[in-house]
Amino acid sequence: MKLLKGNLVYAPRLGELETVPHGALLLDDGGAVRDILAAAPEGCDAEVLDYGDALIMPSFADMHLHAPQYPMLGMGMDLPLIEWLNTYTFATEARFADTDYARRVYRRLAQDLVTGGTTRVCMFSSLHTDATLILMEELERAGVTGCVGKVNMDRNSGDVLRETTEQSKRETLRWLDECARFRHVSPILTPRFTPSCTDELMAWLGRLADERGLRVQSHLSENGGEIAWVRELHPDCAQYWETYDKYGLWRDHAVMAHCVHSDAREREALLRANVAVAHCAGSNINICSGVAPIRTMLREGVWVTLGSDIAGGAILAMNRVVTMSIRASKILYMQTQGEDQFLTVEEAYYLGSTAGHRWFGADGGFPKGLPLHAIVVDDGVFAEPVRALTLRERFERSVYLMDKGAIRAVWSEGRRVVG
Amino acid sequence: MKLLKGNLVYAPRLGELETVPHGALLLDDGGAVRDILAAAPEGCDAEVLDYGDALIMPSFADMHLHAPQYPMLGMGMDLPLIEWLNTYTFATEARFADTDYARRVYRRLAQDLVTGGTTRVCMFSSLHTDATLILMEELERAGVTGCVGKVNMDRNSGDVLRETTEQSKRETLRWLDECARFRHVSPILTPRFTPSCTDELMAWLGRLADERGLRVQSHLSENGGEIAWVRELHPDCAQYWETYDKYGLWRDHAVMAHCVHSDAREREALLRANVAVAHCAGSNINICSGVAPIRTMLREGVWVTLGSDIAGGAILAMNRVVTMSIRASKILYMQTQGEDQFLTVEEAYYLGSTAGHRWFGADGGFPKGLPLHAIVVDDGVFAEPVRALTLRERFERSVYLMDKGAIRAVWSEGRRVVG
Repeated sequence: MKLLKGNLVYAPRLGELETVPHGALLLDDGGAVRDILAAAPEGCDAEVLDYGDALIMPSFADMHLHAPQYPMLGMGMDLPLIEWLNTYTFATEARFADTDYARRVYRRLAQDLVTGGTTRVCMFSSLHTDATLILMEELERAGVTGCVGKVNMDRNSGDVLRETTEQSKRETLRWLDECARFRHVSPILTPRFTPSCTDELMAWLGRLADERGLRVQSHLSENGGEIAWVRELHPDCAQYWETYDKYGLWRDHAVMAHCVHSDAREREALLRANVAVAHCAGSNINICSGVAPIRTMLREGVWVTLGSDIAGGAILAMNRVVTMSIRASKILYMQTQGEDQFLTVEEAYYLGSTAGHRWFGADGGFPKGLPLHAIVVDDGVFAEPVRALTLRERFERSVYLMDKGAIRAVWSEGRRVVG
Repeated sequence: MKLLKGNLVYAPRLGELETVPHGALLLDDGGAVRDILAAAPEGCDAEVLDYGDALIMPSFADMHLHAPQYPMLGMGMDLPLIEWLNTYTFATEARFADTDYARRVYRRLAQDLVTGGTTRVCMFSSLHTDATLILMEELERAGVTGCVGKVNMDRNSGDVLRETTEQSKRETLRWLDECARFRHVSPILTPRFTPSCTDELMAWLGRLADERGLRVQSHLSENGGEIAWVRELHPDCAQYWETYDKYGLWRDHAVMAHCVHSDAREREALLRANVAVAHCAGSNINICSGVAPIRTMLREGVWVTLGSDIAGGAILAMNRVVTMSIRASKILYMQTQGEDQFLTVEEAYYLGSTAGHRWFGADGGFPKGLPLHAIVVDDGVFAEPVRALTLRERFERSVYLMDKGAIRAVWSEGRRVVG
């Protein structure tokens, strides 16, 4: 057994923050949380890891990002969406046919994720099977867990990045076979988005999801041009989400990135099917897609998580994705004259942490019986405060200011992977 | 003489970017730029500093921040403005009566500024004369140059932080006398904002500015409640800016922070008087003040610079203040259906760098005959790109991604102060 001592801070439910000053987490030999203790017990025979006055908080879950876009982080941000896709995105992803290059970039990405406190991901790879497997290897090696998808895209993807319908099916099956060897990373079916996939491929993926009980991720209602395009491609579908539903891809635990322009009817469909929204505030502003109505979704009970959306987003660090979500919500707060209350720090942190972990079956912050996912934040590296701060204040400050220098240790799936 | 070799990148004018691949800066013995060279000369007897493939760019100028709010960075962000001021701001500033505490915090702040690439500031201190002098000492020691103001506030400032009109005058004169000893930091008159200063104090400061040829900084039109309050206090003034003008404080090179709600008439007054706006995008969103109409101001010819506005802003690093300004401009771009074009990276970097340096008399990027203010950015620390990037792409990526780890050296006032 292990005993982790420190100040425990976690957001078990939306808007709630639990703080246990000088508490402890008791882990079993597999790294699962056995107990949350108000004080470290005397004479306990567990191995003690004393983090002193540091904060122990649930780690982050990044529920939408494109691994092969990591090399283009912070580039092309002034371009309109279609030019950005053609000039940067497709050309960048195409480079991942080179497995040596993929190895180098994905090793770096996996390291940057975990040292930044992200221990769970729901991630797009490219269409390349081998590079996708390398990505999964590198995530496992670094201690990042979660789901990764080989991307399916058999139409409308330009010259440099294309697969035929047959190739897409065959490679998907080959990839799924190879995935059996991973312990902490699983496959997720990933039709890029409706315009990138023929009806035949969509239908095939829907059947595959059913047969194998696989989860699905894609994009939904990111911007106006895209929505109009989908309507043209599927005149029989009243709304974007129905193009997924038509082929059995609108499923429980599907993850749909963006949902910036999802109206009441589409949000109702999200809620009914238990589809999770991956809200990507920074990306949506960078690409001028808009600001997703997160407060409305939360009020309606829609499942909202956060994504960095690398590289439409330019920020990998999830604490900064959390604070960007707060800022985006303040834009809507101002636009609605205060009717849509902005996200509090507790709420936004919940979305970037607990709400994502829940997708992996781990709810409530430090769920008992499940392997620990946590970061240890040393807020003593920030400027000296004017007085002793409450744990709630230290939590807020840490969410705004933490960087790799302040993240002293990271625990993923019950293992210490950083520090 | 010194020869700095590297890739030169600078924004001489709004919207323009000059790039000199493998160029060099020739500095004289005082650290002033003597020449910008397309290639390093052979057999030159200058001391060579070879930065290899790194980027040499003008440093940042932070034109609005509150030094004594640094300890509360990233706290109280969910509070309404007045509660935020009373719970955090005034209580935090009051702590700077303690000169030992001031020394510790200001030493840290000065270090964090310069290692982040900010070499010029236009800064608020607190009302405390001694702490203000300590702040100026610590800035000089670290290599940060610019203007610092002891704050004047003789009304409406709560119980913990107050000075009488007499104290305010006497301490201002004592402070100004002491400032003679600084070489790289100068005093600037700093009435906190109209509601904090009696008419008598405002009038006295206006006369002092005239008599001694001093510059002035303050706040203007940050939010609706504040503007209404100013109107109540000065019913004879049609607009906020006139409350400064009435007392001789609306002067050439005055710096006015925010100007979120400045309408056409107020912007016209800014332009006519050559007053510089310090745009603080992150702070204005954090505190739900709004988004300043920067594109409109630029179109009209108003002088716009950028400020971190610590601690209404939660980000000290000016490259991130630059990218936040871009995001804020994209919000207005979307709200105006594209009529207000968003800020390009070149434009926003110009505002955060050249436009601020200009306020100190240094225009154009690397102005000849003036001491060098520059950062050296090693973009080799970012993820390996898919292909050789253009200097313009490397510039954009550096603006989005740089942090202390990527800033290899900093030059301030012709001296190497970091690296």
